[in-house]
Amino acid sequence: MTDTPALERFYSVIPAGGIGSRLWPLSRADAPKFLHDLTGTGKTLLRGTWDRLVPVSGEQRIMVVTGRAHRAAVEAQLPTLADHNVVLESEPKDSTAAIGLAAAILQHREPGVIIGSFAADHVISDTRSFKRSVVEAVAAADAGYIATIGITPTEPAIGFGYILCGAKLDIQGAPNAYAVNSFVEKPNLDVAKGYLQHGGYLWNGGMFISRADVLLEQLGQAEPELLAGLQELAEAWDTPRRGATVDRVWPKLRKIAIDYTVAEPAAKAGRLAVVPGDFDWDDVGDFAAIGKLHSGGRSNNLAILGEDPRVLSDASTGVVVSHSKRLISLIGVQDIVVVDTPDALLVTTTQNAQRVKSVVDALKLSGRGDVL
Amino acid sequence: MTDTPALERFYSVIPAGGIGSRLWPLSRADAPKFLHDLTGTGKTLLRGTWDRLVPVSGEQRIMVVTGRAHRAAVEAQLPTLADHNVVLESEPKDSTAAIGLAAAILQHREPGVIIGSFAADHVISDTRSFKRSVVEAVAAADAGYIATIGITPTEPAIGFGYILCGAKLDIQGAPNAYAVNSFVEKPNLDVAKGYLQHGGYLWNGGMFISRADVLLEQLGQAEPELLAGLQELAEAWDTPRRGATVDRVWPKLRKIAIDYTVAEPAAKAGRLAVVPGDFDWDDVGDFAAIGKLHSGGRSNNLAILGEDPRVLSDASTGVVVSHSKRLISLIGVQDIVVVDTPDALLVTTTQNAQRVKSVVDALKLSGRGDVL
Repeated sequence: MTDTPALERFYSVIPAGGIGSRLWPLSRADAPKFLHDLTGTGKTLLRGTWDRLVPVSGEQRIMVVTGRAHRAAVEAQLPTLADHNVVLESEPKDSTAAIGLAAAILQHREPGVIIGSFAADHVISDTRSFKRSVVEAVAAADAGYIATIGITPTEPAIGFGYILCGAKLDIQGAPNAYAVNSFVEKPNLDVAKGYLQHGGYLWNGGMFISRADVLLEQLGQAEPELLAGLQELAEAWDTPRRGATVDRVWPKLRKIAIDYTVAEPAAKAGRLAVVPGDFDWDDVGDFAAIGKLHSGGRSNNLAILGEDPRVLSDASTGVVVSHSKRLISLIGVQDIVVVDTPDALLVTTTQNAQRVKSVVDALKLSGRGDVL
Repeated sequence: MTDTPALERFYSVIPAGGIGSRLWPLSRADAPKFLHDLTGTGKTLLRGTWDRLVPVSGEQRIMVVTGRAHRAAVEAQLPTLADHNVVLESEPKDSTAAIGLAAAILQHREPGVIIGSFAADHVISDTRSFKRSVVEAVAAADAGYIATIGITPTEPAIGFGYILCGAKLDIQGAPNAYAVNSFVEKPNLDVAKGYLQHGGYLWNGGMFISRADVLLEQLGQAEPELLAGLQELAEAWDTPRRGATVDRVWPKLRKIAIDYTVAEPAAKAGRLAVVPGDFDWDDVGDFAAIGKLHSGGRSNNLAILGEDPRVLSDASTGVVVSHSKRLISLIGVQDIVVVDTPDALLVTTTQNAQRVKSVVDALKLSGRGDVL
């Protein structure tokens, strides 16, 4: 297709869209998860993602797809993000539209481009190991595969989806790539333990690396109309017609996750490769995950996050997130989750952390959107 | 002593002093327990106490002993409280000084007076039954006893002290009065169960009814210096020397509970009578008690108190006190206690409710008195 080495044709795409409902009332429509420091490093998750990708693709080759409302916050976090690398959504349309539009724009600008999409709100601290895996995935992508990076499980997690590896592939520059046999939904604990014992199962980190044209072609097989819309947007993108085209086309695009339009069909078609990643990874999906991240796996620990937290704790374990300047006192509560913000307070336990989303749904239904 | 019937010589005394540390952060130095509505009736505990005593002694014969800082709040709660019935403490000196000073002032004004002291922050809803017991206690007091009212236990409570009844007394007008054998400290659950099985044990509600001169004489046996100070104050009270005398004498008075100076010595001397009370009674000593009061004894209940509380609860039980206008969301927390105020938040469980005082102590020690 082109003689430029694959890595020089590589572009990172960061879809920065999800609110992170399971992290309410910390994450809000106007302060989504990726704009928070959940790691205690002083960096937002978005900035952490950026810093991890710069060594891979360089800061001129990172595109961020985000909502119009978050433009200022994103640019404040990423001052060296180029204007032409900011793609603004007028309304959220899930990951197929977000990543597909980035692919279409980049392919239009630079035919033969390889793109990798990386969530804005995941945590990986071993940047070097991460880069090694991306480099292999880029080689697999250059060979025509849609590649993903699966994380080697360190425990029988029930909060993640899994990837079942198939046969080893023979790809130059990707010595550790395997075919993907199938994607598996979040398992229960017994099933997850079985996966670890069996071997060959990796956590699905939701990272996809492929040639933009391959991705779009695969997407078009499942969603031809959606592809047509994205192509129309891409052609108008760098012209004065962008605004009008967005207004006309974007609202009509189907809202669907890329797992269903690209990843699963590609796996069935034998076009999906997976590179096992040995780095630490977490999608920090709920407050239990935050607690774990901060306690380094120790139990009997109280993780405290926030702005100048004032916490007085007696015989208590769990997670406290303090964003209200108030004194927080805990006495004899185990695995507790306390999230204290100026207008809303959440009290639950790490065992119930996944149920936070249901509260958000209830608040929506009961017309209390003021605190969402 | 006098021919006036005993009840016409009766005066109610309400010592309104304790902060209620176990109810922090609801109760504070500037908003003590007796100034809160903990019953959901719309009345403060102080006002409830007043309303219960008016049918017994009339509103002209109720004296309130409180701190200078609470004068305005007390008078706002009790607009018909006469000026000469307000006794202000320049600093807290515990119950012997508070009740003893009231006794000395009243005895000086009206020799032969019978006084009854009733905590400002207890809850009794059966006012008629309460009055019947007080009337009997007044008769016992008129006969020369120091009388108390013991509450018939309805369960093996571990948060209260107990009174062990002795022989039945033969007092005119007090057919149900018994001698007090001894006072017993708060028991553990097994011991408390034994008390109920054994019979003859009553809860110590801390109410004392006696002739003022008898009380002062008993007090003087244990604390002659304290008595002398109180007599000096009483003689100066209704004269222009009050201020100077208070400034000189009050700070030097011993700080000690009336249980040690009057009740226990009187029991040992066979001068203490007890009238069993069959009314409901609670000292609402901690948040578990508040929860119980509001749930009517039902478990699997979430009691919600506060000013326009906004609480969203999913599979949670316990007590929420909301004084911050914030939305409070609970998910899957059992027997939880959440007390939400503008500058401090407490999260504990009903089982740990008694330990709240230790947090208050820790806050004092760590110099965070701003939230006390």
